[in-house]
Amino acid sequence: MRRSIATVCVSGTLDDKLTAAASAGFDGIELFENDLVVSPWSPVEVRSRCADLGLTIDLYQPFRDLDSLDDGHFRKSLDRARRKFDVMAQLGVDTVLVCSSVAPDAVNDDDLLAAQLAALADRAADHGMRIAYEALAWGRHVSTWDRSWEIVRRADHPALGLCLDSFHVLSREVSPDPIAGITPGKIFFLQLADAPHLRMDVLQWSRHHRLFPGQGAFDLPGFVRLVLAAGYDGPLSLEVFNDVFRQADPTRTAVDAMRSLVALEDQLTIAGYDGSRTALRALPPAPDLTGHAFTEFAVDGRSGPELRTALRGLGFLHTGQHRTKPVELWEQHSCRVILNSAVTATGPAAISAFAVTSVDPAAALARAEALRAPAHPNVREPGEAELAAITAPDGTQVFVTGPANPWRADFLPTGAKAGGWTAGEPEADDAKAGAGLLAVDHLGLAQPFDHFDEAGLFYHSVLGLDHLAAEEYAAPFGLMRSRAVADPARRVRVALTVSLLRRGEWAPAVSDPQHVAFATADLLATAEALDLPALPVPDNYYDDLAARFALDAGFVATLRKHGILYDRDANGGELLHLYTPVIGGRVFFEIVERRAGYDRFGEPNAPVRMAAQRHRRLTGT
Amino acid sequence: MRRSIATVCVSGTLDDKLTAAASAGFDGIELFENDLVVSPWSPVEVRSRCADLGLTIDLYQPFRDLDSLDDGHFRKSLDRARRKFDVMAQLGVDTVLVCSSVAPDAVNDDDLLAAQLAALADRAADHGMRIAYEALAWGRHVSTWDRSWEIVRRADHPALGLCLDSFHVLSREVSPDPIAGITPGKIFFLQLADAPHLRMDVLQWSRHHRLFPGQGAFDLPGFVRLVLAAGYDGPLSLEVFNDVFRQADPTRTAVDAMRSLVALEDQLTIAGYDGSRTALRALPPAPDLTGHAFTEFAVDGRSGPELRTALRGLGFLHTGQHRTKPVELWEQHSCRVILNSAVTATGPAAISAFAVTSVDPAAALARAEALRAPAHPNVREPGEAELAAITAPDGTQVFVTGPANPWRADFLPTGAKAGGWTAGEPEADDAKAGAGLLAVDHLGLAQPFDHFDEAGLFYHSVLGLDHLAAEEYAAPFGLMRSRAVADPARRVRVALTVSLLRRGEWAPAVSDPQHVAFATADLLATAEALDLPALPVPDNYYDDLAARFALDAGFVATLRKHGILYDRDANGGELLHLYTPVIGGRVFFEIVERRAGYDRFGEPNAPVRMAAQRHRRLTGT
Repeated sequence: MRRSIATVCVSGTLDDKLTAAASAGFDGIELFENDLVVSPWSPVEVRSRCADLGLTIDLYQPFRDLDSLDDGHFRKSLDRARRKFDVMAQLGVDTVLVCSSVAPDAVNDDDLLAAQLAALADRAADHGMRIAYEALAWGRHVSTWDRSWEIVRRADHPALGLCLDSFHVLSREVSPDPIAGITPGKIFFLQLADAPHLRMDVLQWSRHHRLFPGQGAFDLPGFVRLVLAAGYDGPLSLEVFNDVFRQADPTRTAVDAMRSLVALEDQLTIAGYDGSRTALRALPPAPDLTGHAFTEFAVDGRSGPELRTALRGLGFLHTGQHRTKPVELWEQHSCRVILNSAVTATGPAAISAFAVTSVDPAAALARAEALRAPAHPNVREPGEAELAAITAPDGTQVFVTGPANPWRADFLPTGAKAGGWTAGEPEADDAKAGAGLLAVDHLGLAQPFDHFDEAGLFYHSVLGLDHLAAEEYAAPFGLMRSRAVADPARRVRVALTVSLLRRGEWAPAVSDPQHVAFATADLLATAEALDLPALPVPDNYYDDLAARFALDAGFVATLRKHGILYDRDANGGELLHLYTPVIGGRVFFEIVERRAGYDRFGEPNAPVRMAAQRHRRLTGT
Repeated sequence: MRRSIATVCVSGTLDDKLTAAASAGFDGIELFENDLVVSPWSPVEVRSRCADLGLTIDLYQPFRDLDSLDDGHFRKSLDRARRKFDVMAQLGVDTVLVCSSVAPDAVNDDDLLAAQLAALADRAADHGMRIAYEALAWGRHVSTWDRSWEIVRRADHPALGLCLDSFHVLSREVSPDPIAGITPGKIFFLQLADAPHLRMDVLQWSRHHRLFPGQGAFDLPGFVRLVLAAGYDGPLSLEVFNDVFRQADPTRTAVDAMRSLVALEDQLTIAGYDGSRTALRALPPAPDLTGHAFTEFAVDGRSGPELRTALRGLGFLHTGQHRTKPVELWEQHSCRVILNSAVTATGPAAISAFAVTSVDPAAALARAEALRAPAHPNVREPGEAELAAITAPDGTQVFVTGPANPWRADFLPTGAKAGGWTAGEPEADDAKAGAGLLAVDHLGLAQPFDHFDEAGLFYHSVLGLDHLAAEEYAAPFGLMRSRAVADPARRVRVALTVSLLRRGEWAPAVSDPQHVAFATADLLATAEALDLPALPVPDNYYDDLAARFALDAGFVATLRKHGILYDRDANGGELLHLYTPVIGGRVFFEIVERRAGYDRFGEPNAPVRMAAQRHRRLTGT
């Protein structure tokens, strides 16, 4: 099926939008009237530009409030339509969207509505055009898909059909199931948008908070299957009104959009003549991930020594030195940190890359490529391991490697031993080494504002990670949103965070450091073994904790002694965790002990951490 | 009356918040539990810090979901309360807020609620504390002020009273009028917040979109008068949850907050024993403004020549040269532009200052000072006019001068004549000079994201300008919000705009230039007289215009010929206007002709301008 995108999905002027759509590989566009009106190109020039870019114009969107109880007003609408059919002929587009009216004079009589739409369809047919009628979820009288279909059915005009928009259908209570029974050929157009569940006015929800498929909470695959069952074979067209996408780089947004469609198509099974069921366009499946392989920090002459001190304090050993690059491997059990002095000349430390282990790295990379996240090989010397990376939306390099970690052969052992294991040898199963850190529990990656939802879809579709629940919380420097992704076995977790508004000039960067959280089976023992100061936690926190959770006084005293924070979920799962101060300018570490299936990230404690990190920054204590 | 501010109103940690509140002159604070919990200061240290800053702690906010159908749960709440009373004693605060419960086990029986609250009040009284009970607008059962009063009345406990919050009262349908009849002494606390009219879930509205009094749509003076009529004499306390304020510089936000209270108090008339009515604390009244005196652009060696060429093309003459500074005066009828080469070393041109004429400049400046916008005198040589400026939230200097424009004596005439007038002489009334520009119609000032609502309140309260309707529209690089302020006679207008989200990395600054709009009585004649290219307007715009407004073809052809844009309001008022391209990097000019009382700013055409300005930037045409 052809893939289209409405010009309203992306930022810029028409030139920017067409270029972005074409470079992301779309076949066509929906042209919004406003984008044409402000363009210096004539309709013929727009058509020609689209043709040059390999784009068709699949839908034109100029019509609002067509039907009317006032016959004079309706006649004027027909006059306006005639002018627009001329524009459409020049554009080379044959389908125009007509939305249900929101005006006070809107018609509430199905037969009159059918008659007015048929009159319009007559004129459209004269011009070789056709009308796609859509029920806006906030239409004055026609606000559900079933009523719009009833009107189209009564009109029974060959140039009149339905436009179905997943948002308008799925945001209402009316079941979409009977869509599968719509007369074949009568669905003229299909618009796709996802959205989060929000308690708000449906118009505001639609105009500001739509998302690309897979970024929200709607069942898009189920909806599209119904439409395909009704014989629809037009384009899958994205129509997403989103405040962030409207002002972000259109080239990147268009790639995000394309990725959402490719991932959606993979979930659209079609029944074959032989009874087989195949996806519309299947992706290489996402192979199981088995864990975090390493996390790489870019360091400079100032942050490098700070990180080394912190790693030693956490019980890590510098076990390997890269054969050809200024790159160090630090290890503790299955926790591996790489300090890379070759990436950046100066600046605060940052998570420049991370690696996950996959049962089939080649298949994972093939899937990534199909999802418009092509892998690029690392720069390496002869004899070194090949390790291909894909680029996440925030610029982080994501490596996928095999469970045997062949890349470790590129590091010369320093002779240091960690838990009985020496670099280059098989890993020992000795959890008692160091401070008892066992593996990476999760990465905490603060995301750039324009690309938060893009990042969620990237990790979900490319690596096959599930979305966990999103959270919003008030932090000292403004509201934060967090959304984590993880594999079903919770061996790979990435927690994405973003300021709910873009960070202001005040307190810049204080609240958006990145971090690595390591898992321990016994945080109290680990805390005893650490040789670096934990982040100080206020006494007020513990006084409140005792009151909130009715905790045993001795337990609270132990938490307080070590600066350990605490959270408990509704099922009795518990999290014990502690933080380090910010190190090297922009990173910190966390150590977590999950008890009884706790599956969140201690979000209620994030403001405590932020305040303590700021206090330390200001006072040094 | 004392003035307080809730710590939740501003950004930062407790230290930041207290410092900001004190420096803005507040007498007290409402302390939010979360701010205490994340603070390294003990409650006693917080009390001491507040005392050092001259702040009292007027309210503590730890209680949610106190009442319960589950007696065990209610007993636990009482236990929790006991711990919190201890904290409050250390803090030195005697009033605690208890909100109506939102929990599934909330009580829906007035007598049981009264009994539970009385039990809590008993314990509070034992500690010398008192309970202020508040109906949350989204409380499960108690969601209106009248029901919360009924419960407090039934409990009839000296340590139990009401907390009234203007948002919770005015966001609901229940009339606030009977508040005036509440038993004197039973309103324990008054919280003030304004808000815009929004169609959304009331909880989301309250948590994200509150504003300081005078920034929204609620009748705060009317509400406070009712509370004062009931004998309330506690603090006027601001409790504003706002996503932008939460992440903006707290020192500035606190000044904005104080300004809102000072302006509110001016509107609170109190009846005296002698029958007189006086404001609670009256401000110097805002004297009438009579027009725009001048607009000053900061220019450098690159933007200066570009602006001079543009001004000549608009029919301006360089009429005066400052006696001591590299500052030029350009004039046409009552339009005056100053080019100042002394303000900035390099960078794009910007509106660095503007001046308005007032019937009483000294009174205007006294009012500004009372509203925490103190005037600072200009740097001047002996014999030069004194001209005091106040600083607007975006840093623009706002001068207030007398209608005779005494500052013009600081400029030596160049000999150039404009409309029969020579610099230093009385102004001639010759509108035919130049291109027919008569006066400044409005200034268009793009505002920094963090300070948009602050700017609206600044111009409204300090200069006494009215808020006109706010508008939101989709522009090529994201959504925009605009809100204009103007005097009743429309001699001074300032249109404020802001990106609805903070501008991203993509297309920076393209859509937020500043501008001056000049008025003409005949835009067609002015357009003929101009000697500079107007911004090209797309043919598609005129084709659409003809269809939208059913305009005469000849008229549209004339508009098209001159690149004039058109808008019409619901009352038949019409706007004809044209724009110049962006000049000097960040400014442009507009010329407007208002017909039949048109009172808006042609917002629907702003995206056309932005797209054309971008096209020109990219292509030079």
